[in-house]
Amino acid sequence: MSYTSVTEALDALEKLQRTMAAYNHAMGVLYLDATTAAPKDTWEGRGQTMRILSQLVYDLLTAPDNGELLAFLEAHREDLTARQRRETEQVRKQYDQIHRIPAEEYVDYSVLLNDAQNVWQKAKNDDDFEAFAPYLQKIVDCNRRFAGYYNPDMAPYDALLNEYEEGLNTRTLDPFFAQLRRTVVPLLEKIRSAPQIDDSFLHRHYPAADQRVFSDYLMEVMGIDRSHCGIAETEHPYTTNFNNKDVRITTHYYEDNLVSSMFSVIHEGGHALYELGADDCYNYTALSGGVSMGIHESQSRFYENIIGRSEAFIHAIFPKVRELFPKQMEGVDETMFYRAVNKAQPSLIRTEADELTYTLHIMVRYEIEKQLIDGSLAVRDVPRRWKELYREYLGVEVPNDREGCLQDSHWSGGSIGYFPSYALGSAYGPQLLTKMEEDLGDIWTDVAGGDLSKVTLWLRDRIHRHASFYKPKALFEQVCGPFDPKYYTDYLTKKYTGLYGL
Amino acid sequence: MSYTSVTEALDALEKLQRTMAAYNHAMGVLYLDATTAAPKDTWEGRGQTMRILSQLVYDLLTAPDNGELLAFLEAHREDLTARQRRETEQVRKQYDQIHRIPAEEYVDYSVLLNDAQNVWQKAKNDDDFEAFAPYLQKIVDCNRRFAGYYNPDMAPYDALLNEYEEGLNTRTLDPFFAQLRRTVVPLLEKIRSAPQIDDSFLHRHYPAADQRVFSDYLMEVMGIDRSHCGIAETEHPYTTNFNNKDVRITTHYYEDNLVSSMFSVIHEGGHALYELGADDCYNYTALSGGVSMGIHESQSRFYENIIGRSEAFIHAIFPKVRELFPKQMEGVDETMFYRAVNKAQPSLIRTEADELTYTLHIMVRYEIEKQLIDGSLAVRDVPRRWKELYREYLGVEVPNDREGCLQDSHWSGGSIGYFPSYALGSAYGPQLLTKMEEDLGDIWTDVAGGDLSKVTLWLRDRIHRHASFYKPKALFEQVCGPFDPKYYTDYLTKKYTGLYGL
Repeated sequence: MSYTSVTEALDALEKLQRTMAAYNHAMGVLYLDATTAAPKDTWEGRGQTMRILSQLVYDLLTAPDNGELLAFLEAHREDLTARQRRETEQVRKQYDQIHRIPAEEYVDYSVLLNDAQNVWQKAKNDDDFEAFAPYLQKIVDCNRRFAGYYNPDMAPYDALLNEYEEGLNTRTLDPFFAQLRRTVVPLLEKIRSAPQIDDSFLHRHYPAADQRVFSDYLMEVMGIDRSHCGIAETEHPYTTNFNNKDVRITTHYYEDNLVSSMFSVIHEGGHALYELGADDCYNYTALSGGVSMGIHESQSRFYENIIGRSEAFIHAIFPKVRELFPKQMEGVDETMFYRAVNKAQPSLIRTEADELTYTLHIMVRYEIEKQLIDGSLAVRDVPRRWKELYREYLGVEVPNDREGCLQDSHWSGGSIGYFPSYALGSAYGPQLLTKMEEDLGDIWTDVAGGDLSKVTLWLRDRIHRHASFYKPKALFEQVCGPFDPKYYTDYLTKKYTGLYGL
Repeated sequence: MSYTSVTEALDALEKLQRTMAAYNHAMGVLYLDATTAAPKDTWEGRGQTMRILSQLVYDLLTAPDNGELLAFLEAHREDLTARQRRETEQVRKQYDQIHRIPAEEYVDYSVLLNDAQNVWQKAKNDDDFEAFAPYLQKIVDCNRRFAGYYNPDMAPYDALLNEYEEGLNTRTLDPFFAQLRRTVVPLLEKIRSAPQIDDSFLHRHYPAADQRVFSDYLMEVMGIDRSHCGIAETEHPYTTNFNNKDVRITTHYYEDNLVSSMFSVIHEGGHALYELGADDCYNYTALSGGVSMGIHESQSRFYENIIGRSEAFIHAIFPKVRELFPKQMEGVDETMFYRAVNKAQPSLIRTEADELTYTLHIMVRYEIEKQLIDGSLAVRDVPRRWKELYREYLGVEVPNDREGCLQDSHWSGGSIGYFPSYALGSAYGPQLLTKMEEDLGDIWTDVAGGDLSKVTLWLRDRIHRHASFYKPKALFEQVCGPFDPKYYTDYLTKKYTGLYGL
């Protein structure tokens, strides 16, 4: 059809976005079910359904009418509000991207991911990389091809990075990671010669049932509204949101590890606060939800590390820890607990890494992804390369693939180019903190009293409420000015120098 | 389009059915999430999504092309296999029904049900019928209108009954219920003067965590394949199936009641076995899943009552009961347990009613539904009428609406005309048992050994595997011959005469 008025076109744009939101909701719930409640041998029927829903999304977005609609709105740009312009821009981006992907490839990919999710879980359990390799191969091939569809003018891996963080590329990431290594590696060396922190009590027996109560408590301290945010259990923790009134986080309980789930809950809780804090007006539009993975991780890792691993926060929650785990906490005081949750020690598992070595885990993945996409590394050599890089960057020996290259769900979920946003998000944090303290003065007295409301309100006002209205770089810069990783390296140096008396 | 070959038309029919199955899967998962995991204030966004998916289902089914497709297939009936004919017939039925409902009404109704589900849960918790009444009013009005669309030649309530059990009507139900009352009421009177059974130990404290372990055990004894069947917790237990490899049951734990969840699990497990036992070939077609509510309830109530409340079954599971609940079972032996789970006593809650009084609960609902639909009872008078009928049929005083007319989820879920199928299903059971024993000889030795495989295989062969291939009446008759409620009344008389020594 041809449009005769802006109002008519905006109605069509709204309808398109609402419909897309509904399909995404349906697919999101299918994924949530698959990872939380579904019996293990049920992926086949879900694959059928995903195939049909993906086709629906594809058909919806690629309808010839949309090209006309977008062209009409772009031609009437001056009649649109800033929000309408940004919606048009976001839908245009999706339209252009998907338009370049042949329907069959698009649908096959969603089915592939449904299968891969299932195969990866089994392969991880069985420490059987061979079983997962053909799926990873297909996922890499698809991503390489999709990169060309997304942005034929960029190097393929840059095009993928750009999917998770607009504007990100290896040209900026290479020196960023190099600068981090220059800070982290010498710090780690000094720490190696300093007296070691005892964290053995964190590995006593912590029954899952008690950890569940602890999760509820942590969400309460974070001020998460449970009437709009649920928690479930999955192999790999994640956050998903259907709108700003319906957010779910997940965690995984290990009974020999108190802090794994504790910091998962705080991390995912940070994602959840971002989604819950978005203004209502963005619901059911292309601007709903966090704007990028980098900004998202800046929120989750802000809560996890800058708040969650602070002396003040540990002071606030330690009485509850002692109440819930009286036996396990025998002989442990607040300071010991604070030091233990901050122990820096090269290790195998990214999600359980301390704040200092975390980025080194990301660098391993970054190197491997770059090489997989540019073709210089074969899928079958991933386990070997993984081990090499862990030896080189972290100085640890990887005993198996279960605790090695099969540990993360990202690749089986189709996310290649996602990992670097964790490092970027981590690095955003200290710069946000500096700005927050300039604005609010002391925040730590409140945190030590278990009151995060000032912190969260500041973040909500500056970041959360805007959802995807601003582009990530612009959003960060309007809050903090240009990004400078020095805030992050200074923060790490100061924290770990103090902690270990270096 | 016009079809040029049967093959082409059959491909289109298959595609239509597969697409419908995918949409149903998506909506089913949204409902499952809503009732199991979703935080409480999330219905708004789900309503948006349901509205859009319902529109999708409506558009899919009412596409003008389908009329042509069905006409073509019907004209080439002689070229179709029996299965293809039955698929055509089922799709035709759905097409005709939905075709008569205006799109807006259809979509509004699905949104209404999403809201009503939420309002009912709150109203039930708060014992606030007033809050639910306007929703019930709308649901009754819609159902009365839909009845006319479904089958304009039938009385409206008969048309609704027919939705759950093809061929059912008040002309057959009135004398059926009358015959049941003639058996049950005198039995109950005799029981009242007999020595009463002590079931107080069933109401000791049974922690939910231990009951969860018990549920897993019961599902194992029933031979339910857990890799294809999950269990979750909801306000009101139910079973849902996405295909024959993905079935979910739910239960509700009351810590002061061991048998509420126990018999919910066995009941829903019976539904699940029916769905899991369907032949693969029916997946993603209009013939997937159980054929009618009456047949479905015949399976669930067969397991729940005829098996689950038998001396043999109690003998099989009692050691486990004693192992899981050693304190609570102090001084209790197998016979006491068997008698306690069969205690006949008029009560308030249908789902917890004993086998004998159960049908009286159904009769209350049947009378009220008849009157609501024929307009002789106003919605605001439902609580009063409920109390009157409970007094008249069961001789109990209903103290509040929470334990009265707000107890069931059926009406808020839009199901009016569903309840009678419970009674019909219950009555099918003893006739099935008679046939089964004719075929297999003694089944009780196996049951007493905790082995239900012979029972389930017989039911799978006669009932489960056929999914919706045969119409319910034909299916029952090809297994048992014409339905005769006397099997049921004889069974009840024999069982309760023995139990109470009447």
